[in-house]
Amino acid sequence: MHKRRRWAGRMKSMRRSTIREILKLTKQPGMISFAGGLPAPELFPLKAFSEAMEKTLQQDGAAALQYDVTEGYGPLKEFLCGWLSKQGVACNPENMMFTSGSQQALDLIGRVFFDPGDRILVENPTYLGAIQAFNAYEVEYLSAPMDEHGMIPDVASRLAKKRRPKIGYFVPTFQNPSGITMTLERRLALLKLAREQHFPIVEDDPYSYLRFRGERVPSLHQLAKGKNVIYVSTFSKLLSPGIRLGFVVAEPDIITSLVLAKQAADLQPNSLIQRAVYHYCEAGHLDLHIPTITEAYRVRANQMMTAIREFFPPGIRCVEPEGGMFIWCTLPAKISAMRLFKEAVKHNVAYVAGTVFHPHGDGRNTLRLNFTNSTAEQIRTGIQRLGDVFREALV
Amino acid sequence: MHKRRRWAGRMKSMRRSTIREILKLTKQPGMISFAGGLPAPELFPLKAFSEAMEKTLQQDGAAALQYDVTEGYGPLKEFLCGWLSKQGVACNPENMMFTSGSQQALDLIGRVFFDPGDRILVENPTYLGAIQAFNAYEVEYLSAPMDEHGMIPDVASRLAKKRRPKIGYFVPTFQNPSGITMTLERRLALLKLAREQHFPIVEDDPYSYLRFRGERVPSLHQLAKGKNVIYVSTFSKLLSPGIRLGFVVAEPDIITSLVLAKQAADLQPNSLIQRAVYHYCEAGHLDLHIPTITEAYRVRANQMMTAIREFFPPGIRCVEPEGGMFIWCTLPAKISAMRLFKEAVKHNVAYVAGTVFHPHGDGRNTLRLNFTNSTAEQIRTGIQRLGDVFREALV
Repeated sequence: MHKRRRWAGRMKSMRRSTIREILKLTKQPGMISFAGGLPAPELFPLKAFSEAMEKTLQQDGAAALQYDVTEGYGPLKEFLCGWLSKQGVACNPENMMFTSGSQQALDLIGRVFFDPGDRILVENPTYLGAIQAFNAYEVEYLSAPMDEHGMIPDVASRLAKKRRPKIGYFVPTFQNPSGITMTLERRLALLKLAREQHFPIVEDDPYSYLRFRGERVPSLHQLAKGKNVIYVSTFSKLLSPGIRLGFVVAEPDIITSLVLAKQAADLQPNSLIQRAVYHYCEAGHLDLHIPTITEAYRVRANQMMTAIREFFPPGIRCVEPEGGMFIWCTLPAKISAMRLFKEAVKHNVAYVAGTVFHPHGDGRNTLRLNFTNSTAEQIRTGIQRLGDVFREALV
Repeated sequence: MHKRRRWAGRMKSMRRSTIREILKLTKQPGMISFAGGLPAPELFPLKAFSEAMEKTLQQDGAAALQYDVTEGYGPLKEFLCGWLSKQGVACNPENMMFTSGSQQALDLIGRVFFDPGDRILVENPTYLGAIQAFNAYEVEYLSAPMDEHGMIPDVASRLAKKRRPKIGYFVPTFQNPSGITMTLERRLALLKLAREQHFPIVEDDPYSYLRFRGERVPSLHQLAKGKNVIYVSTFSKLLSPGIRLGFVVAEPDIITSLVLAKQAADLQPNSLIQRAVYHYCEAGHLDLHIPTITEAYRVRANQMMTAIREFFPPGIRCVEPEGGMFIWCTLPAKISAMRLFKEAVKHNVAYVAGTVFHPHGDGRNTLRLNFTNSTAEQIRTGIQRLGDVFREALV
């Protein structure tokens, strides 16, 4: 921060994304990176999306390049609501809006709900992008610990009753960073708590469509019949993150406020992208493509778990995921994953130290591994290198 | 606003865009609308942009669909800096970032600079999108009156010295809404004031490239050699607004803060759009296309001024523009343009009542006419209808 400038007070609580900084570092040649949260680029449906884009520019023509309404492109809302309703997220077009990735949904939620000092109930660890978005609103985090079944309801309940959160924010399915899915029982307990304590819930769900084993757990949105749950998801993992198209499903009065906030923030979603995604979906590609990604990710997750079992020294616990993009590991309590990160980079392998996902800076012995953006060969070699680093630290 | 919800305090100062609401209303069949600020869709370079998009998806492939850096796509920054430097806006890639339209640039500027209660010096009238963006930060407006030479320096100076603005925000060239261009003398006076009073200037410049008569006036950015001026512009008027690509040129420390804010707001600009616009520009289309739009807008502005002279009753002053998209009219002091708007809509013609562009709600007898989004026939018929409405009100 430049000294002679008079910045806004909120700038003090904002910081650069550690992950985005790591991503730059990991572009070094020879580096195997499990740090990012990038989908596999070789699986992007380039051909189908190119066709959809061509159709858009030919058929929709000038309308695809003109201003359009903030609420979002009607036909895509219609399609997506139909699709989501089949997945258990009941929805009508007036319940839906589009955002510039789900990151903007989180920002807009912050904007319409948070005053400085407001408290937000989150899982500990929680999604880094949410921390970044909400920090701009100078909120305080009530972070409830997790085990392998998700956030622990009793602790969350004690926190909520004592500190009265304005909102609860959760990634209940294949959580980023932990990969953990909240059980049905705990979802019901959380919804009961939210009802009793009168706070709306944000369900951030980019990953549930990427389930490669186990049984689907109903979304919080479904269990609450949409009441007081703001459902946030995105095309980033289903199609492409570069096109920046997220969406929100919520009660109409909340959508109205979020649309108002979006008008001020960036006027409207991208006309061209909305229409291209519509043509892509309407041609049936969404349902064709998801099994392809899911199967590839299943294979990579298995490869990584196999390599972990082979190369990691005893004393390191890793959570085997049922979907999503991440494996979460816990080192012995005395070991700092942040300190070991420098060692790992020397060995040409990278991860994200888990402490950045903990709003209060705990979780020093945890780390996140991404398995979707590496080849079988890279996964095996990278995990072997990491195993060497950990083994050395554990002696 | 739903009563049972606990919204953020800032929601009280946010309101829906009157213009966006009017745009919905003016979609009625038979309506001739001079209300929007829409570029002429029939002039969009559909073919050239389609080719650029095809090239992007073929040549850049997966990279165009993947996550990328918040700072923006390097080659487009290189190109655009070269192009802008030739136009007198000296720039290097580290001075530049991309935003989701210039609306997001205004939002991010608000985010990094404004605390509630901060004051901002603006022209009166000023751009409605800026009022919307800045309202979210609960600022106060110091609005300095304009004449046909732009903002009046003495009044601006008195306001600034007394009330100490945190920032000055101006649209010095072909202003939206007034179409007026600030003279060189007044630009120099404004820059002197900003230096003495230590406030940075935001120069919002979507229109200067659309000059169809008169001599170019150097940008504030150029006159200040980039010092303490945040230059904001967009591809919305040069190429397409639907693709949502704006840009900011500013000193590197300001870019760093804005990038940090953008990470929290929506992570990054659209990878695909940035690359497609790069291929479009790199093939030479930007310089080919601008004269086409400019010439068409010149013709339409002339048609509208001719019709105004023919059909408007005496006592209405309209400012003949040298570029941009708008003609600004002032009715006799006692007449309310807002009240007459309903009458105009009954006659199937629409404009924007000028009061919405005045942060303190004055300018009741002013109105804005857009000439870029209507045919010669529509312009003549629409102005004739308006003439009837005004004549009736003036008797």
